Amino acid sequence: MTTIAICSGGLDSVTLAYKLADGAALKRLVSFDYGQRHRKELDFARACAAALAVPHDVIDLTHLASFLKGSALTDAENFEVPDGHYAEPTMRVTVVPNRNAIMLAIGFAIAAGDGARSVAAAFHSGDHFIYPDCRPAFVEAFAAMQQRALEGCWDVALDTPFIDMAKADIVRVGAALDVPFGDTWSCYKGGERHCGRCGTCVERREAFDLAGVADPTDYAQVPA
Amino acid sequence: MTTIAICSGGLDSVTLAYKLADGAALKRLVSFDYGQRHRKELDFARACAAALAVPHDVIDLTHLASFLKGSALTDAENFEVPDGHYAEPTMRVTVVPNRNAIMLAIGFAIAAGDGARSVAAAFHSGDHFIYPDCRPAFVEAFAAMQQRALEGCWDVALDTPFIDMAKADIVRVGAALDVPFGDTWSCYKGGERHCGRCGTCVERREAFDLAGVADPTDYAQVPA
Repeated sequence: MTTIAICSGGLDSVTLAYKLADGAALKRLVSFDYGQRHRKELDFARACAAALAVPHDVIDLTHLASFLKGSALTDAENFEVPDGHYAEPTMRVTVVPNRNAIMLAIGFAIAAGDGARSVAAAFHSGDHFIYPDCRPAFVEAFAAMQQRALEGCWDVALDTPFIDMAKADIVRVGAALDVPFGDTWSCYKGGERHCGRCGTCVERREAFDLAGVADPTDYAQVPA
Repeated sequence: MTTIAICSGGLDSVTLAYKLADGAALKRLVSFDYGQRHRKELDFARACAAALAVPHDVIDLTHLASFLKGSALTDAENFEVPDGHYAEPTMRVTVVPNRNAIMLAIGFAIAAGDGARSVAAAFHSGDHFIYPDCRPAFVEAFAAMQQRALEGCWDVALDTPFIDMAKADIVRVGAALDVPFGDTWSCYKGGERHCGRCGTCVERREAFDLAGVADPTDYAQVPA
């Protein structure tokens, strides 16, 4: 048990948690409440930690939320979550400034304090198009920064096993591990059911389809 | 007004704020409550913002404090703040895991949301010996990471004008700018008066002495 996993409660990070638990590496799950519209995802992260019998910390960054302006994920007053595919320019409004650097930096602090050897995150190749803080160049630069930040005091690595995989590949990995996909949450709108139309719902449906794995998700609306 | 300064309320960061304000670059001060024993420093940061007539945000990370174990600054239950010089090995217990990476990452998020062009921090050469996350190699790696994290969305630089200066040099800069040094707080013990004996008090006294600037600080005890 050497690894702390950042877990949103989504399909990717829940699969990551199962993969780490399968290798007996999972020590703890860490989630973040940053005032996201779809904070109900945190319930799914909690359920994942319970299923895998590891501790779960939800770091409260809601105080910070008022500063994370200009994103549809945190600023419901001024933005709508756009429908459509991630590849569309309209998706840009779902970028939250510096979100992943903040989460990872806190993850590394927790890992250092907890004696863990690595922090795992579920970045994958489908994220890269619009989110600069999901790309391999960011991940490499972040790991290099952390090596300097903790030098001589703590030794913690950044583990991103899905970085070169598409979301469909993650679905295949999860299916092989019997991940309960129905107990994961993707939709940015955070409603009763997955909306089926926002960027992350579109990507989720597509991934199951491409992977040839049955999609247990209850979508409110599926475009023809 | 292009720059957000991270300000603890200490001598270095208050001088940094005055220097930026002098060049009309200061847009906002940001401080962090991370459960530090000497959180009274935040009152001095607030006073600095008021004197310079800029907004002041205190980011509440107290929820995170329980995870920042193993440091004398955040874990009063298990540690004493050591007396003596920073160069002594005993000072190691004042390292807070990944503190500066967290603060800077949040600073960059605020800067991005606020349309600022840079985040300024008062790292200086005296910090380097025991704190890996104050060294030039960390600062360079952090700036490189941020460039990747915000690429194509925001353009925010890291400004560390004191990085090659000793604390005595900062006192000289501050004296030339009429910084009210008496309205800054250094002592890690966070008592009524500066203790005069902990690492940061020793360094503070030494800096005024080396700079040949009168030290207005009220120390409880000054070793012979």
